[in-house]
Amino acid sequence: MKELLIRVKEFRDARDWKQFHNPKDLAQAISIESAELLEHFLWKSQMDSFKVVQISKEEVADELADIFAYLLSFADVAEIDLEEALIKKLEKNAMKYPVELAKGRADKYTKLSSNN
Amino acid sequence: MKELLIRVKEFRDARDWKQFHNPKDLAQAISIESAELLEHFLWKSQMDSFKVVQISKEEVADELADIFAYLLSFADVAEIDLEEALIKKLEKNAMKYPVELAKGRADKYTKLSSNN
Amino acid sequence: MKELLIRVKEFRDARDWKQFHNPKDLAQAISIESAELLEHFLWKSQMDSFKVVQISKEEVADELADIFAYLLSFADVAEIDLEEALIKKLEKNAMKYPVELAKGRADKYTKLSSNN
Amino acid sequence: MKELLIRVKEFRDARDWKQFHNPKDLAQAISIESAELLEHFLWKSQMDSFKVVQISKEEVADELADIFAYLLSFADVAEIDLEEALIKKLEKNAMKYPVELAKGRADKYTKLSSNN
Repeated sequence: MKELLIRVKEFRDARDWKQFHNPKDLAQAISIESAELLEHFLWKSQMDSFKVVQISKEEVADELADIFAYLLSFADVAEIDLEEALIKKLEKNAMKYPVELAKGRADKYTKLSSNN
Repeated sequence: MKELLIRVKEFRDARDWKQFHNPKDLAQAISIESAELLEHFLWKSQMDSFKVVQISKEEVADELADIFAYLLSFADVAEIDLEEALIKKLEKNAMKYPVELAKGRADKYTKLSSNN
Repeated sequence: MKELLIRVKEFRDARDWKQFHNPKDLAQAISIESAELLEHFLWKSQMDSFKVVQISKEEVADELADIFAYLLSFADVAEIDLEEALIKKLEKNAMKYPVELAKGRADKYTKLSSNN
Repeated sequence: MKELLIRVKEFRDARDWKQFHNPKDLAQAISIESAELLEHFLWKSQMDSFKVVQISKEEVADELADIFAYLLSFADVAEIDLEEALIKKLEKNAMKYPVELAKGRADKYTKLSSNN
């Protein structure tokens, strides 16, 4: 992760692009790249979306990479440790989605309760 | 990265959630979480977006973590190595955005040329 | 509005596309088109976004039209009257955002109270 | 449409919110609301997305209304006639997607040709 962040920052700084990097625009960039990923699966069924990945693996990998690069760039300007943030969030989610309630259910935590 | 992916998969598998994970829905999830990040900066200027991060650092870190978790989950079901994908994409982008043309310019590569 | 909906449906039905139109994919399509609109304003300040519209008016109008067409298509398959939905929502919002509290403030209704 | 635009503007102006309305933020708002619509269909199949609409019709109608309201607000500050924009775009799309090539196919126009 640290190595990857260094590479992303080197790419950015060689082009003097840090001046454009603020949280608002980086969040916009993440949304835009996410929509490009999503476009690959438009009008496809959930099952067929696996086939789309097989057929267009490189394009799909490129879209993932774009999202990831902007995610690292956002974390950098926001001074957030992405690795630590993920570990903390998994701990929070473990409490919001206890195994005994959430097992095998795709419901939002607000809809989970021991009664249903 | 490998350690993080293991944690994300453990969380998923303890809840038996792999059955819901297909590329189409994971791409949807990434888009939805990205929009939640974006919402923090709505009606804020680019400058003020830095302040938003300072004031709401934990919430913002949580949104980043959600995007990152789904990104890792997508990479897992798509059998894509996210680290490798990023390195390859940076190499492609280095050709699309040569330093001498792209330096200090926020234009898309389609608008870069040695003439303007 | 009714005239517009008829045109959108004629376009769709001439191409036998209703078979692809389900709420999930139409919601995806709306998100994708919205991101294309958003891309026009990436790395631009709020002030400069007005200039972008002036310079790229036709492209921007096309993006708006794409969103609107999918919105009408969604409303059609969901059997929702978009006009009626908007009027009802404005009435709800009028209660969530009473003029005396919300005037001149860009805060979410959850942050509005008579005390601050 | 004109009547609806008037209502949206009255709502906005009573709250003195025009000051926040610039194309960049309104495009962000459209993306955010679109993602809220999309969230209703996460982890659901295309078929089941029709059921979601039946079960949550009012919530879904509210999300559509939010997108529509911001679309009208964007058109207003951008001085774009949404009705005219839609009619023009349908004409352009009719040329990009000729009936004889596009009939029954969900492909992007870039993938349509008389040979396949």
